[in-house]
Amino acid sequence: MSLTNDSPEVAAAAAKTASFTLASLPASARNEALEAIHAALTASKDEILAANARDLELAQKAAADGMLSQALVSRLDLGKKGKFEDMLQGILDVRDLEDPVGKVSLRTKLDDNLNLERVSCPIGVLLIIFEARPEVIANIASLAIKSGNAAILKGGKESTESFIAISKVISSALSTTQVPNSAIQLVITRDAILQLLSQDRSIDLVIPRGSNELVRYIKENTKIPVLGHADGLCSIYLTASADKEKAAVAIVDSKTSYPAACNSVETLLVQDKALDTIFPSVAAALAQKGVTLRVDATSKAALAAASTAFPDGTVVDATPEDFDTEHLSLTLAVKTVSSVEEAILHINTHGSHHTDSIFTSDGAEAEHFMNQVDSAGVYWNASTRLADGMRYGFGTEVGISTNKIHSRGPVGLDGLTIYKYKIRGDYQPTAQYGEGEGKRPWKHERLAF
Amino acid sequence: MSLTNDSPEVAAAAAKTASFTLASLPASARNEALEAIHAALTASKDEILAANARDLELAQKAAADGMLSQALVSRLDLGKKGKFEDMLQGILDVRDLEDPVGKVSLRTKLDDNLNLERVSCPIGVLLIIFEARPEVIANIASLAIKSGNAAILKGGKESTESFIAISKVISSALSTTQVPNSAIQLVITRDAILQLLSQDRSIDLVIPRGSNELVRYIKENTKIPVLGHADGLCSIYLTASADKEKAAVAIVDSKTSYPAACNSVETLLVQDKALDTIFPSVAAALAQKGVTLRVDATSKAALAAASTAFPDGTVVDATPEDFDTEHLSLTLAVKTVSSVEEAILHINTHGSHHTDSIFTSDGAEAEHFMNQVDSAGVYWNASTRLADGMRYGFGTEVGISTNKIHSRGPVGLDGLTIYKYKIRGDYQPTAQYGEGEGKRPWKHERLAF
Repeated sequence: MSLTNDSPEVAAAAAKTASFTLASLPASARNEALEAIHAALTASKDEILAANARDLELAQKAAADGMLSQALVSRLDLGKKGKFEDMLQGILDVRDLEDPVGKVSLRTKLDDNLNLERVSCPIGVLLIIFEARPEVIANIASLAIKSGNAAILKGGKESTESFIAISKVISSALSTTQVPNSAIQLVITRDAILQLLSQDRSIDLVIPRGSNELVRYIKENTKIPVLGHADGLCSIYLTASADKEKAAVAIVDSKTSYPAACNSVETLLVQDKALDTIFPSVAAALAQKGVTLRVDATSKAALAAASTAFPDGTVVDATPEDFDTEHLSLTLAVKTVSSVEEAILHINTHGSHHTDSIFTSDGAEAEHFMNQVDSAGVYWNASTRLADGMRYGFGTEVGISTNKIHSRGPVGLDGLTIYKYKIRGDYQPTAQYGEGEGKRPWKHERLAF
Repeated sequence: MSLTNDSPEVAAAAAKTASFTLASLPASARNEALEAIHAALTASKDEILAANARDLELAQKAAADGMLSQALVSRLDLGKKGKFEDMLQGILDVRDLEDPVGKVSLRTKLDDNLNLERVSCPIGVLLIIFEARPEVIANIASLAIKSGNAAILKGGKESTESFIAISKVISSALSTTQVPNSAIQLVITRDAILQLLSQDRSIDLVIPRGSNELVRYIKENTKIPVLGHADGLCSIYLTASADKEKAAVAIVDSKTSYPAACNSVETLLVQDKALDTIFPSVAAALAQKGVTLRVDATSKAALAAASTAFPDGTVVDATPEDFDTEHLSLTLAVKTVSSVEEAILHINTHGSHHTDSIFTSDGAEAEHFMNQVDSAGVYWNASTRLADGMRYGFGTEVGISTNKIHSRGPVGLDGLTIYKYKIRGDYQPTAQYGEGEGKRPWKHERLAF
């Protein structure tokens, strides 16, 4: 890793050149680099925490002046119990994942001594733009090296001292390995983001890790593909045939287990037939957990008619905007629909194509919902909070994508690879192949791999 | 298919809605639609050729006035021997391809009664922008329907009458099937391209089929992902250990079998040690086929020293621009390099990441080249002209992509799909899972599929 004051253009070109070398390193060399980083960060803990303390001091002043949120200050703190150790363990976890590079996914005999092979390879150069959390450097550097990609890291200004300290340690560790120094670069030039976003000849993929605003800004300002999601507006469609008790538990989990997460539910669609049967007890369970329900007229009437009493302020009238809002808090919009078709249409129109679930005992209805809802995750009787790389069993995730191409949903190491086609031949001229007299036919035999 | 005068925004939104229905049709319904289109086009051949003749007449006048190229007029002609029949056969060929939708690529048991599945699905709405060839409508409509995608087609103005005739036939054929009418729309509004390119909420992928200029214009003017390639600047690196006779045959094939194709070789890199051994006979074979060699000083000297006499004008001095130019003609730039490293660096810097080949008898050198060259196709002793979906055995191709994400190289039906994650559960709250006391561990068992 190098800590660069080079112009974004120079840094990106250097990363590109380094990416060619990195792409042909064997897994053992990439894993050794991860071990070297792990050992160096372990040895330099005190020095890094001292730098982090300087960042924290400035941030706490800014927070006291109302310039920074307390949540950001908290994310900045590397000294919190277990955080540094988790960062170190994360490096070893990534090392232990299966090598995503060099996997053959197709092998075809085109003719005698003429074989086609499709093999996974790194994408090239990643640009990672992130906000406060300094441990992300180690995390991202590990994922990039493991997948054979060069990476340019641009962090938020609040963690500059921590970034510099970590980056120096990683840099000196990498200099003992086969990974080229400019394969991982930390850009600390201020205001470099727009210039980096214009390096579409050198940078192949942008991965933003931060707020919706950061992601939207990046998508608006680059021609480079962006992997990620801006919004997480997830919905659950509750039908009359759902299990009454279990549905309440799963909806409470989807809403309250981490309300600020992108995979928390924001809209509850209630089948009209469920208004008087299941819905009141679901609403009561939510209210008991402190959730404010923003209800349409029909669902409001159903709650008024029910025997349950709701505390003041927990049931309020929804506005149309509520159904297009990612609340990221203990607020849930509730809308009545008459059919699965209406639910699908609402989700495809107002949702963010992230994760949506149907609660029903009717399997055919569930399959129809899962086929027609245009989202990365489509669930049947399952909490939207399942949308997560660790929970899916991917070991780690780069982020969650709502893109319609390349990678969708929680993105693991595979999402940082593409493939190339290799052909090994014996100089055969292509003009000799074809159909008809005097032409040689293609063999096109699928080979094992 | 509908022939629409709707605004691009209305057309795109209608296509989006239709795409949800199309996405859940079984393969049998999609194949039946292809058969209906095939039957209808067969029955309407005379009517379509009459419309095509009107386009041709106008085009021939324009060509006589020097406003259109004769090549374009030729591409426009659907009445050429076998062309209509090839178009019809193409529809049945697409029908017979394996269904790309609904393929499971991962199945994991997260817990008892909680299963994750990754299943392929259509991308959504494709926008296909193409130039003169009217048979592309049938081809693209088939590929879109087979892969479950809605498509908006925008053709060049030269083939308007043919487009309208074909589109009416396909539209009435589709009305007898389960494919919604607005799933395939032909936009004939003039100057609609920029408006279509701004419909990033409804359109998921743009596929241009036409000249470099068309592709570049589209990439510059949209935020929607574009699948394809602008340039095809392919290189061959000829080393001293290559087979002398076979290398000449394969280089002649790469250059002359279809010089206007994107996969033709444009730059020959010659190892210095090969200048006096293999290169003169390769150059002679090329010159004999009418190829003009644009040579650097060193390779020029080697040819002067060789015994072969070259006809006037077949060996000329290269300019620096020649090594960044896709000549698309019987012109080949020749540059001397001293090593495989220099060849790799030249290709990664000056090439278009399309297809590049090394000619050598050294396997280790070939593997190094194939790993480090950053192109969709990397070949060893093989003609660059192999880069083609039909030749790869994919049956058909949408185009050739030099993108670094999603699909790379010749793109078949798979490139028109993405996946979604389905979870089928029993309302389990996620908060119960994790490590530590009282927590339930994830099972994460890989299941067969």
